[in-house]
Amino acid sequence: MIHQFLHTDTIAAVATASGTGAISVIRLSGPEAITITNAVFKGKDLTEQASHTIHFGTLRDGDKIIDEVLVSLFVAPHSYTKENVVEISCHGSDFIVQQIMQLLLKKGARLANAGEFTKRAFLNGQFDLAQAEAVADLIASDSALSHEVAMKQMRGGFSQEIKRLRAELVHFASMIELELDFGEEDVEFADREQLRSLILNIQQIIRELLKSFELGNVIKNGVPTVIVGKPNAGKSTLLNKLLNEEKAIVSDVPGTTRDFIEDEINIGGITFRFIDTAGLRETTDKVEAIGVERTLQKLSQSSLIIYLFDITTTTTEELQAELEELNPKKLPLLAVANKIDQAIPEQLAEFAGIAGLVQISAAEGAHLEDLKQALVEKVNLGKLNTQQQTIVTNLRHVDSLNKTYEALDDVLNGLALGMSGDLVAADIRRALYSLGQITGEITTDDLLDNIFTKFCIGK
Amino acid sequence: MIHQFLHTDTIAAVATASGTGAISVIRLSGPEAITITNAVFKGKDLTEQASHTIHFGTLRDGDKIIDEVLVSLFVAPHSYTKENVVEISCHGSDFIVQQIMQLLLKKGARLANAGEFTKRAFLNGQFDLAQAEAVADLIASDSALSHEVAMKQMRGGFSQEIKRLRAELVHFASMIELELDFGEEDVEFADREQLRSLILNIQQIIRELLKSFELGNVIKNGVPTVIVGKPNAGKSTLLNKLLNEEKAIVSDVPGTTRDFIEDEINIGGITFRFIDTAGLRETTDKVEAIGVERTLQKLSQSSLIIYLFDITTTTTEELQAELEELNPKKLPLLAVANKIDQAIPEQLAEFAGIAGLVQISAAEGAHLEDLKQALVEKVNLGKLNTQQQTIVTNLRHVDSLNKTYEALDDVLNGLALGMSGDLVAADIRRALYSLGQITGEITTDDLLDNIFTKFCIGK
Repeated sequence: MIHQFLHTDTIAAVATASGTGAISVIRLSGPEAITITNAVFKGKDLTEQASHTIHFGTLRDGDKIIDEVLVSLFVAPHSYTKENVVEISCHGSDFIVQQIMQLLLKKGARLANAGEFTKRAFLNGQFDLAQAEAVADLIASDSALSHEVAMKQMRGGFSQEIKRLRAELVHFASMIELELDFGEEDVEFADREQLRSLILNIQQIIRELLKSFELGNVIKNGVPTVIVGKPNAGKSTLLNKLLNEEKAIVSDVPGTTRDFIEDEINIGGITFRFIDTAGLRETTDKVEAIGVERTLQKLSQSSLIIYLFDITTTTTEELQAELEELNPKKLPLLAVANKIDQAIPEQLAEFAGIAGLVQISAAEGAHLEDLKQALVEKVNLGKLNTQQQTIVTNLRHVDSLNKTYEALDDVLNGLALGMSGDLVAADIRRALYSLGQITGEITTDDLLDNIFTKFCIGK
Repeated sequence: MIHQFLHTDTIAAVATASGTGAISVIRLSGPEAITITNAVFKGKDLTEQASHTIHFGTLRDGDKIIDEVLVSLFVAPHSYTKENVVEISCHGSDFIVQQIMQLLLKKGARLANAGEFTKRAFLNGQFDLAQAEAVADLIASDSALSHEVAMKQMRGGFSQEIKRLRAELVHFASMIELELDFGEEDVEFADREQLRSLILNIQQIIRELLKSFELGNVIKNGVPTVIVGKPNAGKSTLLNKLLNEEKAIVSDVPGTTRDFIEDEINIGGITFRFIDTAGLRETTDKVEAIGVERTLQKLSQSSLIIYLFDITTTTTEELQAELEELNPKKLPLLAVANKIDQAIPEQLAEFAGIAGLVQISAAEGAHLEDLKQALVEKVNLGKLNTQQQTIVTNLRHVDSLNKTYEALDDVLNGLALGMSGDLVAADIRRALYSLGQITGEITTDDLLDNIFTKFCIGK
């Protein structure tokens, strides 16, 4: 069977990271992928070989041997892009890679754009748009959770949910449009009550998906975690201990930290983006005052607050008052008592009974594991079930879901007002359009460019 | 046929460079390479598949999908190491790569040492030691010439030459040892005159090989090219123009450059390591005086001298005198007249007739191509024929060749003195030993460690 190619040109790119490695891989895709490689390969006739086979030989520019290579063949449509694909595994020298690329371009391949292999895979129906986007997320994933969510999306979990919703709406849209064909006759093929309850149901699912983005964003981009507290509570010392390096300048002069010091670490599979802040106090120092002002701003943008206090100088009543003042919006907050190495037993005992409070010594590095565990629990607790739940991580999807939701609102209004079938049908079409953009049933060139230029070259 | 494995353990390592790429490749080698991969792979039973085939599926840690991958199988002895080899092509995320590596180690693979795949390939007879060393050279090659020489060595060109010499010596050694078996009887199986002429012939070839190292070293490590001249001749300006960046500080104050400024560029496939120097003049400035002193030192270590002079202030007689003073050892030297943009026609004409002299304007970037071409010709001219000639690039090989040469000298002396067969045989054995170390017919653990620890992990 001869495969029909959507694209007539053949693209090539380095698929592995540059730099020193034992091997590098160059990838070609397109109708001429195998013939172009065959023209510079000496070993076997690659055009005669079966798909999914590997062949040893040399790549030559005329008589000059450029490298000994392994060539992997994927014959259309049995490949990532559903086109003919060749992967050339060569020695991991940037010089050799460049020589081979030049040779392939000379023989008629074209340098691939960013994400072009995956774009072709999408356009050739290998997977839908949300799955294609997940490929980039997967490559960028740097924690167990972001990896898990991207993997699920790539394997179609999210797409299935969207497609199911869409299929139900499509059914109703076509029923209503059927009514329009009958014009004057007063028939109703689409049960209005059933449609209403379907839409309410879909809206409920969309609300859950939108809510999951709060978490999805955290998983993808990390949990912004602000460390706040009075001056000299030990915030910078704690940050340094958590990061295992001297990132923040530490001194026993209160008010040492004025800028924000940020860095990420992975705890229990979750990326925490820690932000050390200027200590909260009335100050006459102008620069420090700006620092305090900005701390309060940062606070409202964070997902999690660590409130660090000095156990040797704080009472439980003071702590209570400070927390209430600090966190009117009731963001997730973890109260952490510091300097337990300097505390007397009565002070330790006073705070021992408070649920969810962690006692540490940042300077000594004591009980940091308790703190880490409490952080992970704060993020997980109650709101996270990645195994079961579909999680939205992509701002583009949020936008489409919001538009779908609004269009469905219009459908409901129309139904309530007894509007005619053609108007209701138009609103349903609008909802379908937005929903279809997520999985790529509806696309535009701009949309695709926007998505795939964010990929790396060679993917 | 069941393959006999020299090594009983299975090694694993990432074979591609780390960092962002579309894909990464993990490589396993050893008796369990396929079964270990199969234990975590879902798709097909990999143990049932043919060599040189590729299989799509997922890698799983229990129920958790770590990645969708392509697995390439190489069944012993049809692989790089002649063991069972598996290459896993996964998404190019360091996180995923680490997850997969952990999984493979958990299932019984061991993290490979640097160069261990190539070491196994050598020990299993895939290629000899000089060829194995060329693999590392090939990966490190960053110019057309270093690539060409490494490729030739990897493909056995150098080894063949060594083995041919060795085979002839072995023949004579065994003839002489045969004489020893006959003890008292005064027989000579080995024609002494023939042996002498063979050894002289081998010594001649060794001398040529040793001589080629001068060039081989240049090819592998670049041509150290010193730019010298009087203060303010424009040396730093020229260096910056050649490097296309502001590497050296340029001012019109004579004596601006005191330290050596070095950098490499590739011209016509050859790597030139340019060294800018302090201007040569009598000076009372102490720091500058040290600079001048060191310039003269550098000069004697370089392979090529660019003597730059100001055409507007120099006569041909002065130039002649300066060159003779500068270069008593007659190193390859290229005289370059600078500032032609400021010269009057008579000055240009005065130098126009001098063979091999290049006229440029460093400040204007004029005629730099002429200079580059002259540089390439200086390196190539008369001494370089990489197509025909075997070129030694490895200091270890130089050492072994020197030792062989000395042992052969002893053989010649022994023959001249009419020494007994057993003494001559011992010297021949010594020559064979040194020669055998080049291709690895003779090895020690230390020698192998020394060679392969210089490789990268995964090769």
